[in-house]
Amino acid sequence: MSKVTVFGAGAWGSTMAQVLSDAGNDVLLWGRSQQVIDEINSSHTNTKYLGSHVLPSAIAATTDLSSAFEFTDIYVLAIPAQQLRTTLQEWKGNFSSDCTIVSTLKGIEISSQMRMTEVIVDVLGPHKIAIITGPNLADELVLRQPAGAVSAAPTLELAEFVRDVFRTPYYRVYTSIDVMGCELAGAIKSVIALAVGISIGMGFGENTQAMLITRGLNEVARLCAAHGSDPLSAAGLAGMGDLVASCGSPLSRNRTFGEVLGRSGSMAKAREQVAKTVEGVASAQAVVEIAHRVGVEVPVIEAVAEIVSEQLSPADALQKLMEITTKGENFIR
Amino acid sequence: MSKVTVFGAGAWGSTMAQVLSDAGNDVLLWGRSQQVIDEINSSHTNTKYLGSHVLPSAIAATTDLSSAFEFTDIYVLAIPAQQLRTTLQEWKGNFSSDCTIVSTLKGIEISSQMRMTEVIVDVLGPHKIAIITGPNLADELVLRQPAGAVSAAPTLELAEFVRDVFRTPYYRVYTSIDVMGCELAGAIKSVIALAVGISIGMGFGENTQAMLITRGLNEVARLCAAHGSDPLSAAGLAGMGDLVASCGSPLSRNRTFGEVLGRSGSMAKAREQVAKTVEGVASAQAVVEIAHRVGVEVPVIEAVAEIVSEQLSPADALQKLMEITTKGENFIR
Repeated sequence: MSKVTVFGAGAWGSTMAQVLSDAGNDVLLWGRSQQVIDEINSSHTNTKYLGSHVLPSAIAATTDLSSAFEFTDIYVLAIPAQQLRTTLQEWKGNFSSDCTIVSTLKGIEISSQMRMTEVIVDVLGPHKIAIITGPNLADELVLRQPAGAVSAAPTLELAEFVRDVFRTPYYRVYTSIDVMGCELAGAIKSVIALAVGISIGMGFGENTQAMLITRGLNEVARLCAAHGSDPLSAAGLAGMGDLVASCGSPLSRNRTFGEVLGRSGSMAKAREQVAKTVEGVASAQAVVEIAHRVGVEVPVIEAVAEIVSEQLSPADALQKLMEITTKGENFIR
Repeated sequence: MSKVTVFGAGAWGSTMAQVLSDAGNDVLLWGRSQQVIDEINSSHTNTKYLGSHVLPSAIAATTDLSSAFEFTDIYVLAIPAQQLRTTLQEWKGNFSSDCTIVSTLKGIEISSQMRMTEVIVDVLGPHKIAIITGPNLADELVLRQPAGAVSAAPTLELAEFVRDVFRTPYYRVYTSIDVMGCELAGAIKSVIALAVGISIGMGFGENTQAMLITRGLNEVARLCAAHGSDPLSAAGLAGMGDLVASCGSPLSRNRTFGEVLGRSGSMAKAREQVAKTVEGVASAQAVVEIAHRVGVEVPVIEAVAEIVSEQLSPADALQKLMEITTKGENFIR
């Protein structure tokens, strides 16, 4: 049993806190909203984010940053990806040099094209940093439905430590030492999910979706390999698994935005219907640049970037994709 | 342009004939039913299998076996997998030694545990044999929705020849020289799709499905590697792609059967509701034996075999799966 602080009391942070509590840890949940935190402490609910779901009564919550840091030296980050840098800059003085930081964030920092753990190192300097990633939709995980995840860290020792902190009978945590591959796969999946949503909006079925998923992940794998990470991470829970879950969920913002875009051909209409940030839209161009930096062709991802920047209509982008010469199918060679 | 005979005038054979006609070939479609064949010749429809869909008028059809063989030396097989051996035994004298045989069949011959191309060689002896496989649901492909497929053959030359025969603007055909891996992946996907259906029937969502799909394909990859074929075929269109399409389609028999089984816990009820052959049910035990022959652990596939043989209830099988120790995620190492 460990003591763990989870930073972020939204749907995802609260769900991570429950997993960690179910795994036998002593959990403190930090959030900004006094109202949310008071409710968690008094009635063990978080109605704003989790409806009537009752969290384990052992989870304590606080808005006090110093208490949150003093509670333990194992910190789980569950804050919005694009706010990571500014948040860490504010909190910088609170991280001890030997603390363990677990990122549960998915995405690329748009301004710098950095992965989440790169941002952490950039702001805080070297630390023991791991990630938890995989097909983990909060609304299903909070119901304790069976799920798999990956604990990735630079050393197997740290990956196994984090696995042991998180695992419960319903949460199967595998280990990996390929942090970069797992983070790239988890970030890029949102762009592919957008492509799949667009194809659904255009009226296409399972064949087209399956082609985009498979060829999209092939691009992720080649991009990972070119960066020196393991292309097979793309075929694991962080890549294929997370993508399949995102594409299957009618709640996924990437898929929903893509559907409206594919149906209407209009970014304006899609933005109207999905008001929140859509990670795939925000990061498509950044991913294209990351790929081109290492000379990797990523036609599916490029098609999405061209659609969201309104250079091509969905129909023209698909036609362009279909005209590319097919070669050997191989994943990385 | 080539002359091609397609054997089998059901939904799948007729769809393949249309793809081949659209690709610019001169196509003859052979079928057993005089009524179906007459209708294709007179009104270019196959209402029994394809509703009101109108096939290209250039497709000719015949029930005459000699004419079907004499028409060309490129033969595309689209007959039921479990009838392949007896059918080929009947037809044996008609195959010339230098003909090209393209199998579009997916499955393992239950009695022998052989792959489809192994059965072909077993009955006919060595020939130029290739396969076409991938996420190609007939009802979508016949509408000319964009789809991807793999042409696999022992030599790249033959794989490219078959690719060129099949490809159209809406049918993207990649090449592979890993016939074994593509066939194994295409056959085993039905067992994993059954597992996914069972989890849906038990009330679980995208997280659980994504875990079963990803870890199931991990088993396929390890099984492929142990047989000396390319584990990455499992992550390609023949494996991941086909599985994702099967799991997404409410029409898939494996998924539907699994859903009833997961909901009721009863094989009898599932058999009542899905009267036709369910490939995943038929082949689960054969796949377990193929895996054990090379010493590979396949817990997801074993769980399905134990459920369909009524040794374990779906709930007990899932619990057993979740209790297995998690290790490194890696695909093949």
